This record gives sequence, structure tokens and C-alpha cells, in this order.
Amino acid sequence: MDHQHGRLLLVGGTHGNERTAPWILQCWKAQPALLTSPLPTTTCIGNPEAYGANRRYIDRDLNRCFTEALLRDRSCTIREVIRARELVDAYGPGGNDPHGLVLDMHTTTAAMGSSVVTCGERPVDLALAALMHQAVGMPVYLFQINEDQPEECGFLVRRWPCGLVLEVGPVAQGIVDVRTVRKTTACLDGLLDVLRDCLTGKARMPETMVIHRHLASLDWPRDRDGRRIACLHPDRPRWDWTLLYPGDPLFLMETGETVAYQGEEPVWPVFCNEASYEEKGIALSLTRRETMTPPAAGLEALLALLRS
Amino acid sequence: MDHQHGRLLLVGGTHGNERTAPWILQCWKAQPALLTSPLPTTTCIGNPEAYGANRRYIDRDLNRCFTEALLRDRSCTIREVIRARELVDAYGPGGNDPHGLVLDMHTTTAAMGSSVVTCGERPVDLALAALMHQAVGMPVYLFQINEDQPEECGFLVRRWPCGLVLEVGPVAQGIVDVRTVRKTTACLDGLLDVLRDCLTGKARMPETMVIHRHLASLDWPRDRDGRRIACLHPDRPRWDWTLLYPGDPLFLMETGETVAYQGEEPVWPVFCNEASYEEKGIALSLTRRETMTPPAAGLEALLALLRS
Repeated sequence: MDHQHGRLLLVGGTHGNERTAPWILQCWKAQPALLTSPLPTTTCIGNPEAYGANRRYIDRDLNRCFTEALLRDRSCTIREVIRARELVDAYGPGGNDPHGLVLDMHTTTAAMGSSVVTCGERPVDLALAALMHQAVGMPVYLFQINEDQPEECGFLVRRWPCGLVLEVGPVAQGIVDVRTVRKTTACLDGLLDVLRDCLTGKARMPETMVIHRHLASLDWPRDRDGRRIACLHPDRPRWDWTLLYPGDPLFLMETGETVAYQGEEPVWPVFCNEASYEEKGIALSLTRRETMTPPAAGLEALLALLRS
Repeated sequence: MDHQHGRLLLVGGTHGNERTAPWILQCWKAQPALLTSPLPTTTCIGNPEAYGANRRYIDRDLNRCFTEALLRDRSCTIREVIRARELVDAYGPGGNDPHGLVLDMHTTTAAMGSSVVTCGERPVDLALAALMHQAVGMPVYLFQINEDQPEECGFLVRRWPCGLVLEVGPVAQGIVDVRTVRKTTACLDGLLDVLRDCLTGKARMPETMVIHRHLASLDWPRDRDGRRIACLHPDRPRWDWTLLYPGDPLFLMETGETVAYQGEEPVWPVFCNEASYEEKGIALSLTRRETMTPPAAGLEALLALLRS
């Protein structure tokens, strides 16, 4: 049923302890008039089992389970892989009820405010991100997909023709904080406005867009036993989206020593102190701010998708 | 070895995902000069296994395992009960290395700032809390022990002759946030100053102290399936320690309805939106602010303990 691709899938609770988006979806269910979408829209909880348990995941991070290899392997019993397959079979482009666009709504304990993340550089994703950036003013984080590190692939949004990740913080895991709810609904309103403009022919691509291109993630300094022995340096009042120069204080060691940032170029840190990245060995990620021209083909692809 | 009771036990990581105090203990180990205590002081991680796993607990909340019944039951295989017994056997008043005083250092996702909690109304605890309140200006939450609800008993501090709980927030679980570290060390410095004054005879009990007496905890409104259907009402910019009058907005339901606070008297809420209380069915706790005279016997008992 190819003619149904012009539909939007809104996913909350891909991580079960990020409770802001599920709360919004719950309010929409109780008050359907609150969701005024210009196109057919479906909502779902990404990982209902983890959401029920108030945990990020049960067996494995759902947002790393959407690799083609895992989805193909029907013998795999990892609960999140089974769930990933369910979602793709239901709402994926070849599924029973196909949707062309997906927004995967997350929160972070990092003080990042609202931002939009693209997983890779698909022109259609960049086009939608550019329009969101223009409409809402939120920064765009371009996460580089490294196919050599399968652990870092398998993002949900990559299995849909067009998909963005929303990240809103800071908020603790496990709670519904009204300020974070409001920030998230503001972003959602922006997305729906953008899609409305696309459908009515009013959308205009900005000539340039500012993106933050993922360069690397840094782990905490650790001792021989793997024990973390540093925290983010207290001399920086803000970490996320603020320029870090080579030589700037980076970590404060348990010994009181300061470790300076050793890179060769100034960078913009993101996801500083994200609680769930402790297990991934990520203290913060570094990005390079770039100005780019949104790919012209992106908007065309987005419009084609919306009208299909 | 009764003469060794005048020693202080500082516990961090009783909940394994509250990582502020363990970080402070780690820095002290690397830089012993940072801990300038006026009396012999021991530090320890309350729940090392949960701390290693970055989880609140493995089998059961350690801070509910210190009931006499559980400690006596040597056949119990709950890991936290075994750990509770280890701590009591090691550092308890009848243990191998007895300590008279304990400070159990926690964090909360609630925006409560720094506060001190007494579990019950032992005069010696109230005296130390009064001195802390006087020295640091932090509010005192008097948690009522209800012996009829064994689930709510079994606090660590109750197994020591004198013990207080420190609560500092807001901070997400699983991270070390430097502002929270600083708030916690400020409280610790206050405690050590107070103990120094006690030992040098300079401690003067205030004539009155303000306490917040626990009245009740409220659960979230839920539907028949137990699903939570409300959040804290957004019309209150601050929740913790701010007066809630009967008729004030309390919950915002998923339907958009406002539920007003139905109590008979104005109350001071605490632990509003503490993430780990979701599983306990606690949305917030209500307290009554009272002015009381610190029990005279309390300071005498504290001084006797310190000199023993």
C-alpha cells in the first residue's frame, strides 16, 4: 500500500525510563483534540516492557537493535530485537501499516535543552532537520553512523524512509517533569507546523543550516580496574553546546588534578553527563560546528514522501 | 570495645545509583587531606554491588533491610539483607569496629536542595539535626517511623546510636554533577564543624528548631489497571518546601482535569517527583512545619556518645 507512506509515526519510550514522551502520548489518547496533525499520525510506545519496568531496556538497548542483521535473524530471542522487528513489521515502509516518517522522542540527563539528531546524512533527514531548526531554533546534531561499530548502529529512525530523533534535557530518568513536557510539546508543535507548510507548499528551505557534526566520544579517565576516576571539570558553568578549546579544563581527577582537553581543534561538546552512557563508556561527545547547504534533493524527497 | 563509640561512619552509595557521595568518598581516598574530621572517621560504600551495577539495589532497597527481624534471620539470602548484616557486624554498636554516629548520604531527583532527615524522634538525632540546621541552615524532615508498616522501616541509621540521613537534590540518578557534589560537601563541612564544636564544648543548642513532620505520602492517581494517570500540577513553579493549601492544584490528569489538594490543613510537600519512589507508589510526601524545643537530653546524649 505505497500510497500510505505520507504518514507520521511518533514514538515515545524507546528507552523505558525516559517518561516524558510517553506521558504526552498518554495525554493525547485521553484528549485526542490536543494532537492536531496535518497528516495521518500514529503514536506508539517504543519499548512497552521496559516502560512498564521503568528501565532503559530489558535485554539490550532497543535503539541499537534495528540493524539489518539482527532484524533478519529470526532465531534471536533478545526481547528488544523481537520488539524492533514488531515495529518494523507493523509500521515500517514494507509493513502492514506503512509510515514514511518517524520521530523518535527521547530525553537526556545532560543539560542540552531541546535538540534534533540525525543518524547519518540522508538528504531527506537533513532537509527536515533544517526546517525544524529554522522553525524552532533548536540545534542539529549530526550523528555519524560508523558501520564498522555495529554496537553504535541499529537506530530506530534508520529503518524508516525519513526519521529524526528528538532529545530534550536535562531531566532525571524515571520522572515526568512538566518543564520537559513543555519543551517536548513545543518541538512537536514545530514539527507539525513544518509538515503543514510542506503539505501546503509554503515550506522554504533555508539557504544554509548550522549542524554539529559528531567527531568522537570521550570516555571517563579510568584506573586499571576500569573504575572511573574523574568528573567533568567544575570550572565550566555550562558544558553542552559551548565551545571547548584545546587546553581548556576537561576532567577533574579524584586526585584533584585537572586534565585539559588535548584535541587539535575547538569542539562543541554534547551529551555531557548522560546517565545511561556510563555503561557505554561515554562521558561526553564532541562535535564540530559546520555551516552547510541543505541538500536540494532532501526537500524534494520529503515532499514526495509526504504526498505518496 | 565501648570506648570507641565516639567515631563517625560516613556512608555513601546506600542506593547504588546515587553517585554523588561515593564520588566524594573516592576523592577523599585519593586526597586524604580533604577530610579534616575532629573525630576518628570511617567511610564506606553502603551497597557496593548495586553501585557497581549503577542500580538503586539488586534484590531489595538496602535502606529498608535494617529491621531487627531481617538482621536476625540468618537464612535470608536477599543480597541487601546480607550486606546490612555485614555493615552492622562491622561498624554497628556491637560490631568489631564500633561507631557511635552515622551519616547516610543520599541524593534525590526532587528539587529539594539540601536537607537532613531524622528517622523517628530519638532525642540524640534531633539534637544533631538541630545543630546542623543552625550551622548550615538546611531544613529538617522528621520521618515518622510506622512500626505497623515494616516495608517502611529498616532504615540504616536506626541501627546506630545516632544517625542522620542527608538528602541533596535535584540530581539525576547515575551521574556525578559538580553542583550536587558541592552542596553535599558543604553539608559535610557543616556536620564536621558541629561535631568539632561539640568536642570543644562550644556547641550551643538553639532554643527552638523548625522541623517538617511527615504526615503522609500521596500516590499518583491511577486507573483500574494501576497505570499512573497524572503528573504534578504545572501551575506551581516550585513544589518542595512550599506551602500547599487545601484547594490548591495538586495533580494534572491525563484528561486535562485539575485535582486539587483535599487535605484539611496547609502542608509542606517534600520528595516531589523522586524517581525511585515510583515503585513505592509515592508521588510526594506531605509534612507539617512545627517549631519544637530540641530535647535537652539529646545534646547530653550526643556529647556522651562523642566522648565515649
